[in-house]
Amino acid sequence: MVAKTKTLAELSTMVGGELTGDPDTTINGLADLALAGEGDISFLVKETGLDRLQSSKASAFIVPQSLTYDDKPLIRVANPYLAAARIQNFFQYKPFQAKGISPMAHIGNNCHIPTEISISPFVHIGDRVTLGKRVTLHPGVVIGDDTVIGDDCLLYANVTVYHACIIGSGVIIHSGTVIGSDGYGFATDAQGNHVKWPHIGTVQIDDDVEIGANVTVDRGTFAMTHIMRGTKVDNLVQIGHNVKIGENSLVVAQVAIGGSASLGNNVVLGGQVAIKGHINLGDGVMVAAKSGVHSNLPKGAIVSGIPAIPHKDWLKASIIFTKLPKLYSELRDLKKKIATMDEKLFPANEQE
Amino acid sequence: MVAKTKTLAELSTMVGGELTGDPDTTINGLADLALAGEGDISFLVKETGLDRLQSSKASAFIVPQSLTYDDKPLIRVANPYLAAARIQNFFQYKPFQAKGISPMAHIGNNCHIPTEISISPFVHIGDRVTLGKRVTLHPGVVIGDDTVIGDDCLLYANVTVYHACIIGSGVIIHSGTVIGSDGYGFATDAQGNHVKWPHIGTVQIDDDVEIGANVTVDRGTFAMTHIMRGTKVDNLVQIGHNVKIGENSLVVAQVAIGGSASLGNNVVLGGQVAIKGHINLGDGVMVAAKSGVHSNLPKGAIVSGIPAIPHKDWLKASIIFTKLPKLYSELRDLKKKIATMDEKLFPANEQE
Amino acid sequence: MVAKTKTLAELSTMVGGELTGDPDTTINGLADLALAGEGDISFLVKETGLDRLQSSKASAFIVPQSLTYDDKPLIRVANPYLAAARIQNFFQYKPFQAKGISPMAHIGNNCHIPTEISISPFVHIGDRVTLGKRVTLHPGVVIGDDTVIGDDCLLYANVTVYHACIIGSGVIIHSGTVIGSDGYGFATDAQGNHVKWPHIGTVQIDDDVEIGANVTVDRGTFAMTHIMRGTKVDNLVQIGHNVKIGENSLVVAQVAIGGSASLGNNVVLGGQVAIKGHINLGDGVMVAAKSGVHSNLPKGAIVSGIPAIPHKDWLKASIIFTKLPKLYSELRDLKKKIATMDEKLFPANEQE
Repeated sequence: MVAKTKTLAELSTMVGGELTGDPDTTINGLADLALAGEGDISFLVKETGLDRLQSSKASAFIVPQSLTYDDKPLIRVANPYLAAARIQNFFQYKPFQAKGISPMAHIGNNCHIPTEISISPFVHIGDRVTLGKRVTLHPGVVIGDDTVIGDDCLLYANVTVYHACIIGSGVIIHSGTVIGSDGYGFATDAQGNHVKWPHIGTVQIDDDVEIGANVTVDRGTFAMTHIMRGTKVDNLVQIGHNVKIGENSLVVAQVAIGGSASLGNNVVLGGQVAIKGHINLGDGVMVAAKSGVHSNLPKGAIVSGIPAIPHKDWLKASIIFTKLPKLYSELRDLKKKIATMDEKLFPANEQE
Repeated sequence: MVAKTKTLAELSTMVGGELTGDPDTTINGLADLALAGEGDISFLVKETGLDRLQSSKASAFIVPQSLTYDDKPLIRVANPYLAAARIQNFFQYKPFQAKGISPMAHIGNNCHIPTEISISPFVHIGDRVTLGKRVTLHPGVVIGDDTVIGDDCLLYANVTVYHACIIGSGVIIHSGTVIGSDGYGFATDAQGNHVKWPHIGTVQIDDDVEIGANVTVDRGTFAMTHIMRGTKVDNLVQIGHNVKIGENSLVVAQVAIGGSASLGNNVVLGGQVAIKGHINLGDGVMVAAKSGVHSNLPKGAIVSGIPAIPHKDWLKASIIFTKLPKLYSELRDLKKKIATMDEKLFPANEQE
Repeated sequence: MVAKTKTLAELSTMVGGELTGDPDTTINGLADLALAGEGDISFLVKETGLDRLQSSKASAFIVPQSLTYDDKPLIRVANPYLAAARIQNFFQYKPFQAKGISPMAHIGNNCHIPTEISISPFVHIGDRVTLGKRVTLHPGVVIGDDTVIGDDCLLYANVTVYHACIIGSGVIIHSGTVIGSDGYGFATDAQGNHVKWPHIGTVQIDDDVEIGANVTVDRGTFAMTHIMRGTKVDNLVQIGHNVKIGENSLVVAQVAIGGSASLGNNVVLGGQVAIKGHINLGDGVMVAAKSGVHSNLPKGAIVSGIPAIPHKDWLKASIIFTKLPKLYSELRDLKKKIATMDEKLFPANEQE
């Protein structure tokens, strides 16, 4: 890989920043404050870390607009974290390399596979599969019959996509993830035996979705499980059959979303959250880590707890929870005191 | 696949139903109320959704016996959900296709593999493995030495079964699942180093068990981890060493069952439940999602919470939990009031 | 495998025990009390299970020093569980078998692979990979470019290690585990789109670490995610980017450790625990199963609950939690009683 360089002026233009310092300074990488060295640009997300900026060896810094400091080369922007991510994407961008189809891969019949492709050894592609341009399939990837994958997708090693799934463009799926497994649907007979529901639906994953490692996304019972554009799913998440997740949502590690639940756009689910099946979460809902959501939530709700309640209420209740033993003993004391007072006030009531 | 068709009369007989409407109506598929079209049968689980039935385009409907409605062709049954599942199994049934052993698979020495078999490319089978008839192994499946798999099993891509495991007939295992990994057993020395316990036990999975995707089932320390007939395990479940799960139990996604725990028949564990090691759950126990069970539970217990308590008690306590801040402030007010009253009643007590 | 035997005297010496009974008794295996037979040694962890020892068919027993019983051959030790583990390791030890490199494996360019190696079919090794001596890679293992693996490592089937990771000696990784996937790091623009942070860091796993099945360990954003010597990680655990786990820690199944969290040595995290990102846990911290830790914890802290509080406090509060409905109704009663008393004491206050 040829090393990339940019002048500070070019980087500032790239992120729409306001430059302080020598515009011709050459930058060839981005690192965090602790690791950055000569030739790197670094970034400060909030003004509060100024001491770490001052001790950093980076040649320049992306900083908040409001920062009152001028002793080092700076690019001032509204959102330093975002600007830094954009610059890092520039430095780390690797053009697609078409390695072709490994002779140690297995390709089924009647597939549509463009020439601009990278299919590693031990990849297994079923029949009638369509792959877009610049798709990279790492070793051990298995793609079922009739599945369609869009342009510029990247599937890491040992990902499994079952039959008849639909994956958009620019989708990244990390290792060990399973897309399209049968949902957990059974009908129970009078003897307690569970009769399996065949799952004839599918999974659709829209453009620019990223799915972490060892995630499971079940296929629909009749229709589809649907993850919409730009949503990012962390590792070890369970997405049940018929679930719909809107655009640009964030689903943190080990979340479980029950079957037929429907989530809006820009929803944020913290780690280990559980969403009950068949409920709806409006746009922009935020659920704190480890919470369990049992009922519909309106647009913009922020909730915590099991069952989840408004976050502010949960915070207050949680603080009292830790005081419960004290509260309990106070109540005991009050009861005694009241009994004494009662006896004095209403002597005749004593035997009531 | 040749399309299957049945008359309404035939379907009604198949599920022991009571038919209303033209018995000769031809049905060639089953779908839910929203998706079903001409030629499909659909189903209504409860009477309450009658409006959705009325607007459905299906040609006939499986409905509860009690439904008072007669304008469309109906099959009345005691359990519409079950009847629909049976009919769907009829329509979706695909006979086993013996594709044989791929030349891109690896088969160890001294295996017993019948001719009626489907072994995909990149399947690795160890030595002395026995496979039953009509077993399908998808790509990337790895079967360890000495493992035995019964008839009609279906292992999806990238499943790993370690050595010396025993799997019954009709077992379905979804992608990424790991059967027979070492249990989490260590003895700690005086310096804090953890000495590994070699796990010489095994895993036995009985007939008609289904296991979801990315599940982990550890092998026994000395004896076996045992999942009994008809039990269905959802995705991303952890089953520790020496665990026993009885027949026809349901284990929902992301449950963790601690080592040496023993569950009865027809147990239901909700999503993200944790069962402590070395405890017993009786037949028919139900544990609500996200609960943590720390002690034995008798037959039929229904529990919730961390630690789990009877579900009814937990519901009541949970409601009060949300009122804790109010309760706390009321208690503060009462204390003040009592102090005032006390002062009036027992002026001499003031300094007590 | 040739069967191993030891005399009771030899075993007693091996674990520094005190022997009672015939020192020449031949022992050829170790099993638990229920399964042990003639020729086996078994073990009793605590004195309380003496009846199970008495009914066991084992030929000898490892027991606590304090046990007052002498009717069977015994080895008395300070820690019977540890001594039994050491003896089992002796009996179960299997020397490394160098099976070489399978012709059905794929080895990249410029790798360093010693002759003493076992690389199974369908293993994929990238470019510039270094493997230590006596490394065993089971089928379906994928090792990314530039990764380094130390001596005596054992990677079970379908493990994925991404590029540029560093794994020490004596490391065991169970099936389906993913090491080095991108961390969950995004910067969100004004339109709500999430811009991916390229993860240029790596993962380092030190000597004698064992990692269970279907675990995910994300690579660092800039620097590394680091699991230190002797730590044991159970199945389905999520370890976020930049996390550091100290030596000899225990991380039980389905734990999630948020990005940039730092754990000390000998930390114990119970099953399904969540550790918030960017916090520090001191040496020896213990977190009860299902807890959520939101803030730093000092050395030796023992905590429970969501959010986690000192374990003793949590136990007390949990007990009161179950009494909340009773407490609530008592408070209602007290309020009424106080109102009555108040009316009598301060008649004029009635309308206040």
